[in-house]
Amino acid sequence: MADYQKSGLYKWAGDAENFDKEGPYIELVTSPNNPDGHRREAMVNRSQGLLIHDLAYYWPQYTPISSPSDHDLTLFTVSKSTGHAGMRIGWALVKDKGVAKKMTKFIEISTIGVSKDSQLRAAKVLKAVSDSCEHENSQYEESFFMYSYNIMSQRWKQLRTVVEAGDLFTLPQFSPAFCTFFGQETEPQPAFIWLKCEGDIEDCESLLREHKIISRSGKHFGASPKYVRISMLDTDETFIQLIDRLSAIQQGE
Amino acid sequence: MADYQKSGLYKWAGDAENFDKEGPYIELVTSPNNPDGHRREAMVNRSQGLLIHDLAYYWPQYTPISSPSDHDLTLFTVSKSTGHAGMRIGWALVKDKGVAKKMTKFIEISTIGVSKDSQLRAAKVLKAVSDSCEHENSQYEESFFMYSYNIMSQRWKQLRTVVEAGDLFTLPQFSPAFCTFFGQETEPQPAFIWLKCEGDIEDCESLLREHKIISRSGKHFGASPKYVRISMLDTDETFIQLIDRLSAIQQGE
Repeated sequence: MADYQKSGLYKWAGDAENFDKEGPYIELVTSPNNPDGHRREAMVNRSQGLLIHDLAYYWPQYTPISSPSDHDLTLFTVSKSTGHAGMRIGWALVKDKGVAKKMTKFIEISTIGVSKDSQLRAAKVLKAVSDSCEHENSQYEESFFMYSYNIMSQRWKQLRTVVEAGDLFTLPQFSPAFCTFFGQETEPQPAFIWLKCEGDIEDCESLLREHKIISRSGKHFGASPKYVRISMLDTDETFIQLIDRLSAIQQGE
Repeated sequence: MADYQKSGLYKWAGDAENFDKEGPYIELVTSPNNPDGHRREAMVNRSQGLLIHDLAYYWPQYTPISSPSDHDLTLFTVSKSTGHAGMRIGWALVKDKGVAKKMTKFIEISTIGVSKDSQLRAAKVLKAVSDSCEHENSQYEESFFMYSYNIMSQRWKQLRTVVEAGDLFTLPQFSPAFCTFFGQETEPQPAFIWLKCEGDIEDCESLLREHKIISRSGKHFGASPKYVRISMLDTDETFIQLIDRLSAIQQGE
Protein backbone atom coordinates (compact mmCIF):
# COMPACT_ATOMS: atom_id res chain seq x y z
CA MET A 1 0.00 0.00 0.00
CA ALA A 2 2.83 2.41 0.94
CA ASP A 3 4.58 1.50 -2.33
CA TYR A 4 1.39 1.70 -4.37
CA GLN A 5 0.52 5.23 -3.25
CA LYS A 6 4.15 6.34 -3.26
CA SER A 7 3.40 7.91 0.11
CA GLY A 8 5.72 10.64 1.32
CA LEU A 9 4.89 9.66 4.91
CA TYR A 10 6.34 6.16 5.13
CA LYS A 11 7.95 3.41 3.08
CA TRP A 12 7.72 -0.35 3.20
CA ALA A 13 11.00 -1.57 4.72
CA GLY A 14 10.53 -5.33 4.34
CA ASP A 15 10.27 -8.11 6.91
CA ALA A 16 10.77 -7.12 10.56
CA GLU A 17 13.11 -10.11 10.89
CA ASN A 18 15.67 -8.47 8.62
CA PHE A 19 15.13 -4.82 9.62
CA ASP A 20 18.38 -3.15 10.62
CA LYS A 21 17.89 0.53 9.79
CA GLU A 22 18.46 3.32 12.29
CA GLY A 23 15.75 5.79 13.29
CA PRO A 24 11.99 5.69 13.71
CA TYR A 25 10.05 2.69 12.43
CA ILE A 26 6.60 1.13 12.55
CA GLU A 27 6.40 -2.60 13.18
CA LEU A 28 3.27 -4.62 12.44
CA VAL A 29 2.83 -7.65 14.68
CA THR A 30 0.15 -10.11 13.56
CA SER A 31 -0.66 -12.55 16.32
CA PRO A 32 -1.73 -15.27 15.82
CA ASN A 33 0.15 -14.97 12.58
CA ASN A 34 -1.41 -15.25 9.13
CA PRO A 35 -0.68 -17.71 7.46
CA ASP A 36 0.95 -20.08 9.97
CA GLY A 37 -1.23 -19.52 13.09
CA HIS A 38 1.70 -19.11 15.51
CA ARG A 39 1.80 -16.53 18.29
CA ARG A 40 4.05 -13.60 17.43
CA GLU A 41 5.76 -10.85 19.40
CA ALA A 42 7.61 -7.71 18.33
CA MET A 43 10.99 -8.59 16.77
CA VAL A 44 12.83 -5.30 16.20
CA ASN A 45 12.74 -4.11 19.83
CA ARG A 46 14.62 -0.82 19.47
CA SER A 47 13.88 2.66 20.65
CA GLN A 48 11.92 4.94 18.26
CA GLY A 49 9.64 2.07 17.30
CA LEU A 50 5.88 2.34 17.03
CA LEU A 51 4.12 -1.02 17.31
CA ILE A 52 0.83 -1.94 15.65
CA HIS A 53 -0.63 -5.21 16.87
CA ASP A 54 -3.05 -6.89 14.50
CA LEU A 55 -5.15 -9.25 16.64
CA ALA A 56 -7.60 -10.23 13.89
CA TYR A 57 -7.24 -13.89 14.90
CA TYR A 58 -6.91 -13.44 18.67
CA TRP A 59 -10.27 -15.00 19.51
CA PRO A 60 -10.86 -18.05 21.71
CA GLN A 61 -12.15 -20.27 18.87
CA TYR A 62 -8.74 -19.94 17.18
CA THR A 63 -6.20 -19.58 19.98
CA PRO A 64 -5.93 -19.66 23.79
CA ILE A 65 -6.58 -16.16 25.19
CA SER A 66 -3.61 -16.20 27.53
CA SER A 67 -3.68 -12.57 28.66
CA PRO A 68 -5.57 -9.33 28.07
CA SER A 69 -4.25 -7.40 25.08
CA ASP A 70 -2.27 -4.42 26.35
CA HIS A 71 -0.48 -2.74 23.45
CA ASP A 72 -0.15 0.86 22.29
CA LEU A 73 -2.20 0.31 19.17
CA THR A 74 -4.25 -2.81 18.55
CA LEU A 75 -6.39 -3.65 15.52
CA PHE A 76 -9.44 -5.91 15.51
CA THR A 77 -11.98 -6.92 12.87
CA VAL A 78 -15.39 -8.58 12.70
CA SER A 79 -14.05 -10.39 9.65
CA LYS A 80 -12.44 -13.18 11.67
CA SER A 81 -14.20 -12.86 15.03
CA THR A 82 -17.66 -13.58 13.62
CA GLY A 83 -16.97 -14.30 9.94
CA HIS A 84 -18.55 -11.10 8.61
CA ALA A 85 -15.64 -10.09 6.38
CA GLY A 86 -18.03 -8.49 3.87
CA MET A 87 -19.03 -5.78 6.34
CA ARG A 88 -15.52 -4.27 6.07
CA ILE A 89 -15.64 -3.25 9.74
CA GLY A 90 -12.83 -3.23 12.23
CA TRP A 91 -11.94 -1.32 15.36
CA ALA A 92 -8.82 -0.22 17.14
CA LEU A 93 -7.76 0.24 20.76
CA VAL A 94 -5.32 3.13 20.87
CA LYS A 95 -3.61 4.46 23.99
CA ASP A 96 -2.37 7.77 22.57
CA LYS A 97 -5.27 10.19 22.17
CA GLY A 98 -3.44 12.17 19.47
CA VAL A 99 -2.82 9.06 17.37
CA ALA A 100 -6.46 7.99 17.78
CA LYS A 101 -7.62 11.38 16.53
CA LYS A 102 -5.34 11.15 13.49
CA MET A 103 -6.72 7.69 12.69
CA THR A 104 -10.28 9.02 12.88
CA LYS A 105 -9.33 11.93 10.64
CA PHE A 106 -7.73 9.56 8.14
CA ILE A 107 -10.95 7.51 7.90
CA GLU A 108 -12.90 10.72 7.42
CA ILE A 109 -10.81 12.10 4.59
CA SER A 110 -10.03 8.82 2.84
CA THR A 111 -13.58 7.42 2.75
CA ILE A 112 -15.76 10.13 4.40
CA GLY A 113 -16.61 7.56 7.05
CA VAL A 114 -17.53 3.90 7.25
CA SER A 115 -20.80 2.60 5.77
CA LYS A 116 -23.66 3.18 8.25
CA ASP A 117 -25.33 0.00 6.98
CA SER A 118 -22.25 -1.95 8.02
CA GLN A 119 -21.98 -0.15 11.35
CA LEU A 120 -25.60 -0.94 12.24
CA ARG A 121 -25.29 -4.57 11.24
CA ALA A 122 -21.95 -4.99 13.02
CA ALA A 123 -23.43 -3.51 16.22
CA LYS A 124 -26.29 -6.01 16.00
CA VAL A 125 -23.98 -8.96 15.37
CA LEU A 126 -21.63 -8.00 18.22
CA LYS A 127 -24.58 -7.59 20.58
CA ALA A 128 -25.79 -11.10 19.69
CA VAL A 129 -22.29 -12.44 20.40
CA SER A 130 -22.08 -10.55 23.68
CA ASP A 131 -25.57 -11.71 24.75
CA SER A 132 -24.66 -15.31 23.98
CA CYS A 133 -21.68 -15.05 26.34
CA GLU A 134 -23.78 -13.63 29.16
CA HIS A 135 -26.35 -16.41 28.91
CA GLU A 136 -23.74 -19.13 28.73
CA ASN A 137 -24.44 -20.54 32.17
CA SER A 138 -28.06 -21.25 31.39
CA GLN A 139 -28.60 -24.84 30.31
CA TYR A 140 -30.12 -23.98 26.94
CA GLU A 141 -27.51 -21.62 25.65
CA GLU A 142 -24.07 -22.00 24.21
CA SER A 143 -21.89 -18.95 23.70
CA PHE A 144 -20.96 -17.98 20.17
CA PHE A 145 -17.30 -18.67 21.00
CA MET A 146 -17.97 -22.12 22.46
CA TYR A 147 -20.03 -22.98 19.39
CA SER A 148 -17.24 -21.79 17.07
CA TYR A 149 -14.54 -23.44 19.18
CA ASN A 150 -16.29 -26.80 18.90
CA ILE A 151 -16.59 -26.51 15.11
CA MET A 152 -12.93 -25.52 14.73
CA SER A 153 -11.92 -28.33 17.07
CA GLN A 154 -13.83 -30.92 15.07
CA ARG A 155 -12.43 -29.63 11.77
CA TRP A 156 -8.84 -29.66 12.98
CA LYS A 157 -9.32 -33.22 14.29
CA GLN A 158 -10.61 -34.35 10.88
CA LEU A 159 -7.80 -32.52 9.13
CA ARG A 160 -5.03 -33.99 11.33
CA THR A 161 -6.50 -37.46 10.92
CA VAL A 162 -6.40 -37.31 7.13
CA VAL A 163 -2.98 -35.59 6.94
CA GLU A 164 -1.35 -37.98 9.41
CA ALA A 165 -2.70 -40.98 7.50
CA GLY A 166 0.01 -40.42 4.85
CA ASP A 167 3.48 -38.91 4.53
CA LEU A 168 2.76 -36.47 1.69
CA PHE A 169 1.80 -33.49 3.87
CA THR A 170 2.63 -32.06 7.30
CA LEU A 171 0.90 -29.47 9.48
CA PRO A 172 2.31 -26.99 12.02
CA GLN A 173 2.42 -28.24 15.59
CA PHE A 174 1.00 -26.07 18.35
CA SER A 175 1.30 -26.18 22.12
CA PRO A 176 -1.86 -26.01 24.22
CA ALA A 177 -2.12 -23.17 26.74
CA PHE A 178 -4.50 -21.96 29.41
CA CYS A 179 -7.36 -19.90 27.91
CA THR A 180 -8.64 -17.32 30.40
CA PHE A 181 -11.86 -16.95 28.40
CA PHE A 182 -12.87 -20.61 28.60
CA GLY A 183 -11.13 -21.15 31.96
CA GLN A 184 -9.34 -24.26 30.71
CA GLU A 185 -6.41 -25.37 28.60
CA THR A 186 -7.15 -25.17 24.86
CA GLU A 187 -5.33 -25.99 21.65
CA PRO A 188 -4.60 -23.43 18.92
CA GLN A 189 -6.80 -24.22 15.92
CA PRO A 190 -6.08 -21.54 13.34
CA ALA A 191 -8.42 -20.15 10.70
CA PHE A 192 -5.92 -21.20 8.04
CA ILE A 193 -4.19 -24.47 7.27
CA TRP A 194 -0.47 -23.87 6.64
CA LEU A 195 0.16 -27.09 4.79
CA LYS A 196 3.60 -28.33 3.75
CA CYS A 197 4.22 -30.75 0.91
CA GLU A 198 6.98 -33.15 1.93
CA GLY A 199 9.51 -35.09 -0.19
CA ASP A 200 10.25 -33.93 -3.72
CA ILE A 201 7.07 -31.94 -4.28
CA GLU A 202 8.30 -28.40 -4.84
CA ASP A 203 5.05 -26.72 -5.93
CA CYS A 204 2.34 -27.63 -3.46
CA GLU A 205 -0.20 -25.20 -4.93
CA SER A 206 -0.03 -26.88 -8.39
CA LEU A 207 -0.38 -30.35 -6.92
CA LEU A 208 -3.50 -29.28 -5.02
CA ARG A 209 -4.93 -27.43 -8.01
CA GLU A 210 -4.69 -30.65 -10.05
CA HIS A 211 -6.93 -32.16 -7.42
CA LYS A 212 -9.36 -29.24 -7.43
CA ILE A 213 -8.18 -27.64 -4.20
CA ILE A 214 -7.60 -23.90 -4.42
CA SER A 215 -4.83 -22.70 -2.11
CA ARG A 216 -2.41 -19.79 -1.88
CA SER A 217 1.24 -20.62 -2.44
CA GLY A 218 3.78 -19.99 0.30
CA LYS A 219 5.72 -17.80 -2.15
CA HIS A 220 3.10 -15.04 -1.59
CA PHE A 221 4.02 -15.07 2.11
CA GLY A 222 7.79 -14.96 1.78
CA ALA A 223 7.99 -18.73 2.27
CA SER A 224 8.81 -21.75 0.10
CA PRO A 225 6.32 -22.93 -2.58
CA LYS A 226 6.37 -26.23 -0.70
CA TYR A 227 3.86 -24.47 1.60
CA VAL A 228 0.28 -23.43 0.89
CA ARG A 229 -2.38 -21.61 2.86
CA ILE A 230 -5.94 -22.99 2.82
CA SER A 231 -8.97 -21.49 4.57
CA MET A 232 -10.56 -23.48 7.40
CA LEU A 233 -13.61 -21.20 7.50
CA ASP A 234 -15.65 -22.27 4.48
CA THR A 235 -19.04 -24.01 4.69
CA ASP A 236 -19.35 -27.54 6.10
CA GLU A 237 -20.00 -28.85 2.59
CA THR A 238 -16.83 -27.28 1.19
CA PHE A 239 -14.77 -28.39 4.17
CA ILE A 240 -15.89 -32.02 3.76
CA GLN A 241 -14.93 -31.85 0.06
CA LEU A 242 -11.52 -30.53 1.09
CA ILE A 243 -11.00 -33.43 3.49
CA ASP A 244 -12.18 -35.94 0.87
CA ARG A 245 -9.85 -34.52 -1.79
CA LEU A 246 -6.84 -34.42 0.54
CA SER A 247 -7.58 -38.02 1.45
CA ALA A 248 -7.81 -38.97 -2.25
CA ILE A 249 -4.38 -37.40 -2.93
CA GLN A 250 -2.88 -39.35 -0.04
CA GLN A 251 -4.29 -42.58 -1.43
CA GLY A 252 -2.72 -41.81 -4.81
CA GLU A 253 -6.04 -41.52 -6.63
CA MET B 1 -6.26 14.22 0.33
CA ALA B 2 -3.19 14.41 -1.95
CA ASP B 3 -1.58 16.80 0.54
CA TYR B 4 -2.58 14.73 3.55
CA GLN B 5 -1.02 11.54 2.28
CA LYS B 6 1.96 13.37 0.75
CA SER B 7 1.38 11.21 -2.30
CA GLY B 8 4.27 10.80 -4.71
CA LEU B 9 1.76 10.27 -7.54
CA TYR B 10 0.05 13.66 -7.70
CA LYS B 11 -0.19 17.02 -5.96
CA TRP B 12 -3.04 19.44 -5.39
CA ALA B 13 -2.48 22.33 -7.80
CA GLY B 14 -5.30 24.63 -6.67
CA ASP B 15 -8.37 25.94 -8.49
CA ALA B 16 -8.69 25.03 -12.17
CA GLU B 17 -9.51 28.69 -12.85
CA ASN B 18 -5.96 29.74 -11.96
CA PHE B 19 -4.10 26.71 -13.29
CA ASP B 20 -1.30 27.69 -15.66
CA LYS B 21 1.31 24.96 -15.31
CA GLU B 22 2.72 23.02 -18.26
CA GLY B 23 2.48 19.26 -18.57
CA PRO B 24 0.01 16.58 -17.56
CA TYR B 25 -2.82 17.48 -15.19
CA ILE B 26 -6.06 16.09 -13.80
CA GLU B 27 -9.08 18.41 -13.72
CA LEU B 28 -12.12 17.68 -11.57
CA VAL B 29 -15.36 19.07 -12.99
CA THR B 30 -18.30 19.04 -10.56
CA SER B 31 -21.54 19.68 -12.42
CA PRO B 32 -23.92 20.88 -11.14
CA ASN B 33 -21.39 22.54 -8.91
CA ASN B 34 -21.27 22.20 -5.13
CA PRO B 35 -21.98 24.66 -3.48
CA ASP B 36 -23.59 27.01 -6.00
CA GLY B 37 -25.64 24.58 -8.14
CA HIS B 38 -24.48 25.99 -11.50
CA ARG B 39 -23.60 23.81 -14.48
CA ARG B 40 -19.85 23.55 -15.00
CA GLU B 41 -17.58 22.59 -17.87
CA ALA B 42 -13.84 21.91 -18.07
CA MET B 43 -11.86 25.16 -17.73
CA VAL B 44 -8.22 24.31 -18.39
CA ASN B 45 -8.71 22.84 -21.87
CA ARG B 46 -5.13 21.97 -22.76
CA SER B 47 -3.54 18.86 -24.13
CA GLN B 48 -2.24 16.31 -21.59
CA GLY B 49 -5.32 16.82 -19.39
CA LEU B 50 -7.29 14.00 -17.83
CA LEU B 51 -10.84 15.02 -16.90
CA ILE B 52 -12.84 13.58 -14.03
CA HIS B 53 -16.49 14.59 -14.11
CA ASP B 54 -18.29 14.41 -10.77
CA LEU B 55 -22.00 14.18 -11.60
CA ALA B 56 -23.16 13.57 -8.01
CA TYR B 57 -25.93 16.16 -8.48
CA TYR B 58 -26.78 15.46 -12.14
CA TRP B 59 -30.22 14.00 -11.42
CA PRO B 60 -33.55 15.31 -12.72
CA GLN B 61 -34.86 16.39 -9.30
CA TYR B 62 -31.95 18.87 -9.07
CA THR B 63 -31.20 19.95 -12.62
CA PRO B 64 -32.48 19.56 -16.20
CA ILE B 65 -30.89 16.47 -17.79
CA SER B 66 -29.99 18.21 -21.03
CA SER B 67 -27.87 15.49 -22.62
CA PRO B 68 -26.49 12.04 -21.88
CA SER B 69 -23.23 12.13 -19.94
CA ASP B 70 -20.38 11.29 -22.32
CA HIS B 71 -17.05 11.91 -20.58
CA ASP B 72 -13.88 9.87 -20.21
CA LEU B 73 -14.37 9.32 -16.50
CA THR B 74 -17.59 10.10 -14.68
CA LEU B 75 -18.37 9.66 -11.00
CA PHE B 76 -21.80 9.04 -9.49
CA THR B 77 -23.08 8.36 -5.98
CA VAL B 78 -26.25 7.10 -4.31
CA SER B 79 -25.62 9.80 -1.72
CA LYS B 80 -27.36 12.51 -3.73
CA SER B 81 -29.42 10.49 -6.20
CA THR B 82 -31.49 8.76 -3.53
CA GLY B 83 -30.26 10.34 -0.29
CA HIS B 84 -28.44 7.25 1.01
CA ALA B 85 -25.16 8.98 1.82
CA GLY B 86 -24.54 6.62 4.75
CA MET B 87 -24.12 3.65 2.41
CA ARG B 88 -20.85 5.17 1.12
CA ILE B 89 -21.53 3.78 -2.36
CA GLY B 90 -20.73 5.34 -5.68
CA TRP B 91 -19.96 4.15 -9.16
CA ALA B 92 -17.96 5.31 -12.13
CA LEU B 93 -18.32 5.15 -15.90
CA VAL B 94 -14.84 4.88 -17.37
CA LYS B 95 -14.01 4.67 -21.06
CA ASP B 96 -10.40 3.53 -20.75
CA LYS B 97 -10.29 -0.13 -19.70
CA GLY B 98 -6.79 0.25 -18.22
CA VAL B 99 -7.86 3.17 -16.03
CA ALA B 100 -10.96 1.26 -14.89
CA LYS B 101 -8.78 -1.69 -13.87
CA LYS B 102 -6.46 0.59 -11.90
CA MET B 103 -9.45 2.12 -10.09
CA THR B 104 -10.73 -1.35 -9.16
CA LYS B 105 -7.26 -2.31 -7.94
CA PHE B 106 -7.08 0.86 -5.84
CA ILE B 107 -10.38 0.02 -4.11
CA GLU B 108 -9.10 -3.49 -3.48
CA ILE B 109 -5.82 -2.50 -1.87
CA SER B 110 -7.03 0.60 -0.02
CA THR B 111 -10.15 -0.94 1.58
CA ILE B 112 -10.12 -4.62 0.43
CA GLY B 113 -13.45 -3.89 -1.27
CA VAL B 114 -16.67 -2.06 -0.54
CA SER B 115 -19.02 -3.26 2.23
CA LYS B 116 -21.22 -6.07 0.90
CA ASP B 117 -24.03 -4.88 3.19
CA SER B 118 -23.95 -1.53 1.43
CA GLN B 119 -23.72 -3.12 -2.02
CA LEU B 120 -26.77 -5.30 -1.38
CA ARG B 121 -28.82 -2.42 0.01
CA ALA B 122 -27.75 -0.05 -2.79
CA ALA B 123 -28.74 -2.64 -5.40
CA LYS B 124 -32.16 -2.94 -3.75
CA VAL B 125 -32.65 0.85 -3.57
CA LEU B 126 -31.59 1.39 -7.18
CA LYS B 127 -33.93 -1.39 -8.33
CA ALA B 128 -36.83 0.29 -6.51
CA VAL B 129 -35.95 3.60 -8.23
CA SER B 130 -35.66 1.90 -11.62
CA ASP B 131 -38.98 0.04 -11.14
CA SER B 132 -40.73 3.29 -10.18
CA CYS B 133 -39.61 4.82 -13.48
CA GLU B 134 -40.87 1.90 -15.53
CA HIS B 135 -44.31 2.02 -13.92
CA GLU B 136 -44.60 5.75 -14.28
CA ASN B 137 -47.27 5.67 -16.94
CA SER B 138 -49.69 3.72 -14.80
CA GLN B 139 -52.17 5.96 -13.04
CA TYR B 140 -51.25 4.85 -9.53
CA GLU B 141 -47.53 5.30 -9.64
CA GLU B 142 -45.21 8.24 -9.54
CA SER B 143 -41.54 7.78 -10.37
CA PHE B 144 -38.99 8.37 -7.64
CA PHE B 145 -37.59 11.30 -9.63
CA MET B 146 -40.98 12.94 -10.15
CA TYR B 147 -41.70 12.59 -6.44
CA SER B 148 -38.33 14.13 -5.54
CA TYR B 149 -38.65 16.81 -8.21
CA ASN B 150 -41.99 17.93 -6.79
CA ILE B 151 -40.58 18.16 -3.25
CA MET B 152 -37.54 20.14 -4.40
CA SER B 153 -39.79 22.37 -6.47
CA GLN B 154 -42.05 23.12 -3.52
CA ARG B 155 -39.09 23.79 -1.22
CA TRP B 156 -37.39 26.17 -3.67
CA LYS B 157 -40.69 28.03 -4.11
CA GLN B 158 -41.03 28.47 -0.33
CA LEU B 159 -37.39 29.50 -0.06
CA ARG B 160 -37.57 32.08 -2.87
CA THR B 161 -40.78 33.52 -1.41
CA VAL B 162 -39.21 34.09 2.01
CA VAL B 163 -35.87 35.37 0.66
CA GLU B 164 -37.49 37.76 -1.83
CA ALA B 165 -39.74 39.21 0.88
CA GLY B 166 -36.75 41.18 2.23
CA ASP B 167 -33.47 42.64 1.00
CA LEU B 168 -31.12 40.96 3.47
CA PHE B 169 -30.38 37.85 1.36
CA THR B 170 -30.10 36.88 -2.29
CA LEU B 171 -30.13 33.52 -4.07
CA PRO B 172 -28.44 32.39 -7.29
CA GLN B 173 -30.56 32.73 -10.41
CA PHE B 174 -30.87 29.79 -12.76
CA SER B 175 -32.17 29.43 -16.31
CA PRO B 176 -34.70 26.72 -17.09
CA ALA B 177 -33.77 24.19 -19.76
CA PHE B 178 -35.30 21.21 -21.51
CA CYS B 179 -35.01 18.03 -19.41
CA THR B 180 -34.86 14.94 -21.63
CA PHE B 181 -35.79 12.73 -18.68
CA PHE B 182 -39.08 14.49 -17.91
CA GLY B 183 -39.64 15.54 -21.55
CA GLN B 184 -40.32 19.14 -20.57
CA GLU B 185 -38.58 22.33 -19.53
CA THR B 186 -37.52 22.29 -15.88
CA GLU B 187 -35.84 24.68 -13.47
CA PRO B 188 -32.57 23.90 -11.65
CA GLN B 189 -33.36 23.37 -7.96
CA PRO B 190 -30.08 22.49 -6.28
CA ALA B 191 -29.54 20.31 -3.21
CA PHE B 192 -27.81 23.26 -1.52
CA ILE B 193 -28.80 26.85 -0.94
CA TRP B 194 -25.92 29.17 -1.83
CA LEU B 195 -27.15 32.15 0.13
CA LYS B 196 -25.58 35.60 0.00
CA CYS B 197 -25.90 38.18 2.77
CA GLU B 198 -26.32 41.61 1.19
CA GLY B 199 -25.39 45.05 2.52
CA ASP B 200 -22.83 45.39 5.29
CA ILE B 201 -23.12 41.86 6.67
CA GLU B 202 -19.66 40.42 6.17
CA ASP B 203 -20.03 37.14 8.07
CA CYS B 204 -23.21 35.44 6.97
CA GLU B 205 -22.47 32.22 8.87
CA SER B 206 -22.31 34.06 12.23
CA LEU B 207 -25.52 35.95 11.57
CA LEU B 208 -27.33 32.70 10.81
CA ARG B 209 -25.80 30.91 13.79
CA GLU B 210 -27.18 33.63 16.08
CA HIS B 211 -30.57 32.65 14.72
CA LYS B 212 -29.95 28.92 15.17
CA ILE B 213 -29.28 28.12 11.54
CA ILE B 214 -26.20 26.00 10.94
CA SER B 215 -24.52 26.75 7.62
CA ARG B 216 -21.08 26.42 6.05
CA SER B 217 -19.26 29.66 5.34
CA GLY B 218 -18.27 30.61 1.80
CA LYS B 219 -14.67 30.84 2.97
CA HIS B 220 -14.48 27.01 2.99
CA PHE B 221 -15.31 27.07 -0.72
CA GLY B 222 -12.83 29.72 -1.82
CA ALA B 223 -15.57 32.36 -1.75
CA SER B 224 -16.43 35.37 0.40
CA PRO B 225 -17.79 34.87 3.96
CA LYS B 226 -20.81 36.86 2.72
CA TYR B 227 -21.90 33.49 1.28
CA VAL B 228 -23.05 30.36 3.08
CA ARG B 229 -24.07 26.90 1.96
CA ILE B 230 -27.18 25.34 3.53
CA SER B 231 -28.57 21.88 2.81
CA MET B 232 -31.99 21.65 1.13
CA LEU B 233 -32.24 17.91 1.81
CA ASP B 234 -33.13 17.71 5.48
CA THR B 235 -36.48 16.44 6.82
CA ASP B 236 -39.68 18.42 6.22
CA GLU B 237 -39.73 19.44 9.86
CA THR B 238 -36.20 20.85 9.73
CA PHE B 239 -36.85 22.57 6.41
CA ILE B 240 -39.93 24.34 7.78
CA GLN B 241 -37.89 25.53 10.78
CA LEU B 242 -35.28 26.85 8.37
CA ILE B 243 -37.91 28.81 6.43
CA ASP B 244 -39.44 30.14 9.67
CA ARG B 245 -36.08 31.27 11.02
CA LEU B 246 -35.03 32.93 7.75
CA SER B 247 -38.36 34.72 7.77
CA ALA B 248 -37.83 35.83 11.39
CA ILE B 249 -34.40 37.29 10.49
CA GLN B 250 -35.93 39.22 7.59
CA GLN B 251 -38.55 40.66 9.89
CA GLY B 252 -35.83 41.80 12.28
CA GLU B 253 -36.95 39.57 15.13
